[in-house]
Amino acid sequence: MRARVLIRPKQGILDPQGEAVQRALPALGFSGVANVRVGRLVELDIEEAEQLAPMCDKLLANPLVEDYEVQLLDGSG
Amino acid sequence: MRARVLIRPKQGILDPQGEAVQRALPALGFSGVANVRVGRLVELDIEEAEQLAPMCDKLLANPLVEDYEVQLLDGSG
Repeated sequence: MRARVLIRPKQGILDPQGEAVQRALPALGFSGVANVRVGRLVELDIEEAEQLAPMCDKLLANPLVEDYEVQLLDGSG
Repeated sequence: MRARVLIRPKQGILDPQGEAVQRALPALGFSGVANVRVGRLVELDIEEAEQLAPMCDKLLANPLVEDYEVQLLDGSG
């Protein structure tokens, strides 16, 4: 099945990429944007979905500074 | 409102991060994983949702090599 993992900086952890995006937007003419957080997106085909959590802990995310969320997509992904 | 942007390497575009993850998994004891793609996740509060597409084209994604998908989340996001 196709799975998606959303990886975000933990609440309270500095997010330099998010800050950079937020500061760049007004110069490009965009206003009314706040609380920008930039993280990673991993999508993969996996046979056993229960492997996803240990996989995130060991490789995909850094549990010290990142939270992750797993979404199972339908087979066609 | 809270919005989420999923940014992925386009189909057919080389994804070195995805390849690296896919190769690292067997060494960590994970099997049955294929078609790993690594992209970026941007979440933000925005007042006018119609600004999201031009924002992606101009700043968040590189339209030459990346596709993006916008998801509007509920206010509590």
